[in-house]
Amino acid sequence: MVITPGIRDLPYVIQTNGTKFFTLIAEEITWELVNGIFIKAWGYNGSTPGPTIRVYPDDYVCIRVINRLPVKTSIHWHGLIVPNNMDGVPPIEPSPFIEPGHYFDYHFTIHNPPGTYMYHANVDVAVQDHAGLLGGLIVEDPSTQHMPKYKDYLCLLQEWAIGDLPQGDLTKGVYDLTFVKPEFNFFTINGRCYPLTVPLLVEYGDTVKVRFGNIQMNHHPMHLHGHQFSIVGADGFPIAEHMQICKNTILVASGETWDISFLADNPGIWPFHCHMPHHVTNNGALGVGGMFMTVNYC
Amino acid sequence: MVITPGIRDLPYVIQTNGTKFFTLIAEEITWELVNGIFIKAWGYNGSTPGPTIRVYPDDYVCIRVINRLPVKTSIHWHGLIVPNNMDGVPPIEPSPFIEPGHYFDYHFTIHNPPGTYMYHANVDVAVQDHAGLLGGLIVEDPSTQHMPKYKDYLCLLQEWAIGDLPQGDLTKGVYDLTFVKPEFNFFTINGRCYPLTVPLLVEYGDTVKVRFGNIQMNHHPMHLHGHQFSIVGADGFPIAEHMQICKNTILVASGETWDISFLADNPGIWPFHCHMPHHVTNNGALGVGGMFMTVNYC
Amino acid sequence: MVITPGIRDLPYVIQTNGTKFFTLIAEEITWELVNGIFIKAWGYNGSTPGPTIRVYPDDYVCIRVINRLPVKTSIHWHGLIVPNNMDGVPPIEPSPFIEPGHYFDYHFTIHNPPGTYMYHANVDVAVQDHAGLLGGLIVEDPSTQHMPKYKDYLCLLQEWAIGDLPQGDLTKGVYDLTFVKPEFNFFTINGRCYPLTVPLLVEYGDTVKVRFGNIQMNHHPMHLHGHQFSIVGADGFPIAEHMQICKNTILVASGETWDISFLADNPGIWPFHCHMPHHVTNNGALGVGGMFMTVNYC
Repeated sequence: MVITPGIRDLPYVIQTNGTKFFTLIAEEITWELVNGIFIKAWGYNGSTPGPTIRVYPDDYVCIRVINRLPVKTSIHWHGLIVPNNMDGVPPIEPSPFIEPGHYFDYHFTIHNPPGTYMYHANVDVAVQDHAGLLGGLIVEDPSTQHMPKYKDYLCLLQEWAIGDLPQGDLTKGVYDLTFVKPEFNFFTINGRCYPLTVPLLVEYGDTVKVRFGNIQMNHHPMHLHGHQFSIVGADGFPIAEHMQICKNTILVASGETWDISFLADNPGIWPFHCHMPHHVTNNGALGVGGMFMTVNYC
Repeated sequence: MVITPGIRDLPYVIQTNGTKFFTLIAEEITWELVNGIFIKAWGYNGSTPGPTIRVYPDDYVCIRVINRLPVKTSIHWHGLIVPNNMDGVPPIEPSPFIEPGHYFDYHFTIHNPPGTYMYHANVDVAVQDHAGLLGGLIVEDPSTQHMPKYKDYLCLLQEWAIGDLPQGDLTKGVYDLTFVKPEFNFFTINGRCYPLTVPLLVEYGDTVKVRFGNIQMNHHPMHLHGHQFSIVGADGFPIAEHMQICKNTILVASGETWDISFLADNPGIWPFHCHMPHHVTNNGALGVGGMFMTVNYC
Repeated sequence: MVITPGIRDLPYVIQTNGTKFFTLIAEEITWELVNGIFIKAWGYNGSTPGPTIRVYPDDYVCIRVINRLPVKTSIHWHGLIVPNNMDGVPPIEPSPFIEPGHYFDYHFTIHNPPGTYMYHANVDVAVQDHAGLLGGLIVEDPSTQHMPKYKDYLCLLQEWAIGDLPQGDLTKGVYDLTFVKPEFNFFTINGRCYPLTVPLLVEYGDTVKVRFGNIQMNHHPMHLHGHQFSIVGADGFPIAEHMQICKNTILVASGETWDISFLADNPGIWPFHCHMPHHVTNNGALGVGGMFMTVNYC
């Protein structure tokens, strides 16, 4: 079972016909990036990333998306094989805009194999996706649900531009985001900058899977200390064992998901972070910040 | 047979000794990026990308490059195994500058396997390549020439900096390009921004190959909706079937070509686009633009 | 035996208990990037990159790091499996800051397979790593030490921001680096811009391995002319022969190392360079510069 550290799973009800019914509310939120620095963002059900949707192969799902934003929106089910009218790219596809105050029910069967997918707004993406309208969608693998000595984490990467804070300034406050010629100055994992990122907890001997996703401007190379990992999944689809290579840095480009797996055999507190130096700062200040978390042995 | 949507193939004549003789004219052109926004670009034979050169393994080719630009130039046959004096990087290699008003005949045997290659100027590349001096070169695969239910498309990715248009401004006109600290604000597939990009037409049941190439500053992650694809070629060379992985987003870095293949089994109008949010706008304006096209089922 | 063109290997002494003892001195240096343009950089033992550390599997090493910088520092052994207290990320790991005027002895066994690794400062990386505090660490392969017709080169990629030189200006002098909103304008291989980069010398028939490493902001796609190469190693670890693909451009993201191998069968002077157009200029001036070197057949 996948855990998204710091982010809740999206609950669902099972309808009489067996449909799994989920509700996502797109809305304005005030969100703390790090230590008293809040942004006026857009998220789903109170958070950015939105809550993680967890489904199983062959599920039939209905996801009601309620729009409480001041502008029209939509959701694209990134990586999922869905019918054209459920793919969420209006007006190009025959899939609707959702006007403010309205909702749309996306419904489809899960045809994809177990793996890591995403959902995100697909209207004016340079605004809506940079404002925070994205989340994770996991097709769970029934065979790993009760596996002992196994940890499975989802980590979504984001970047933010606060125009009102000059480089190095970390004055607490509530800030607007900038979308015109944005210079990204805050970098998050599951919505938080280090030191607010949630550590990945492991035990000695665990097999640890970490799934990364990214939909924004930069391509983030995530580097793990103290361990070498196998690359086991790409854009949701599993990579066969005879084709897996070993690395300690995985480049997560915009639009990609990558799943990596390692054996927890070297106890300690281990950084796992974007290797671009500015992305491990908070607004360029000295000290460690940004897109940086740790793997902690209990 | 590869088709480059929106771009012509380069014609040739067969000389008495069997040589395939092509002529490329490097010249200033006025080129429409999108909806009345024209640039003063540099191209070959009237277009940017220039016309696609299509050859077969073991062909002996002679490509006459006539320079009608105001500056000296050259052509590098990107990815092809050619002799050093035909590789087009003067004065470092023993391969000439082509002065304005002059020409040079590049001639060599095609030693590469069937696949996707490129040609581009290799003098002052930060100006000449960003001005538009590039094109595709395909080594055709004799075995796929008459294959039924098969489509094969070439898509070349470019980015452009128009300094005179502030972000969001789409005033029609003819504009100069900027090469000093350029901030790229228009993004094209085969020379056009969406909605001027040409759709990839497919029929249900087709095997569809799409080949991407890029030689400029950004690395573009191309994301397909509604389908998963196999990665079948890299920098021209085929990837053996047992080594192909499945993805829906392929990062096309500067200098790379990637070939992907998918089965057309999900009818609709499907986006295929760079996933960097600013790259699917025209100059940062709202709405869909830039490096975005659709796969259209007939 | 790996050669780092233009950079010395770090000498060592073998202690009575068999430990290989190395000494690295972090210090301010004045370093020539290209043709009379010097920077006030930070390096190790007088150079940036610092001297290459060469070890063998199962070696027990002690590396004394003496800090002659005006600020505290540390070293992270990038890609090596070391104990947590030797990994060099204070104060997050139980690994110390090294205060100015002090030293620390990092000691560990080499558990990694033969391959390409790096070392770099891990305190305020957006300053210290961009100032030049990095170097290569090679775990040598005993089986290739005396192989005939074999060349093995390490090439470390760096970028530099000199704020006092407007684009195109190449006035000789000694310059400070810029760390606030840096716009990188000089790009180096083993510390030098072309034409100061050292050619890779090969002979006809050689098998040539080239190892790239990068720890900074940009992801550099390195393109070789006249040859196709196999990708044989990733982040230090070998890629099995049945999984190696053929390319002519390899994207070296921040935090990655990649090893490529080709047969020298096409004599000439062949460019091997970053394909991002601005990265093969010196400060945007016309002509070839930057992250560009040649492979020269003797």
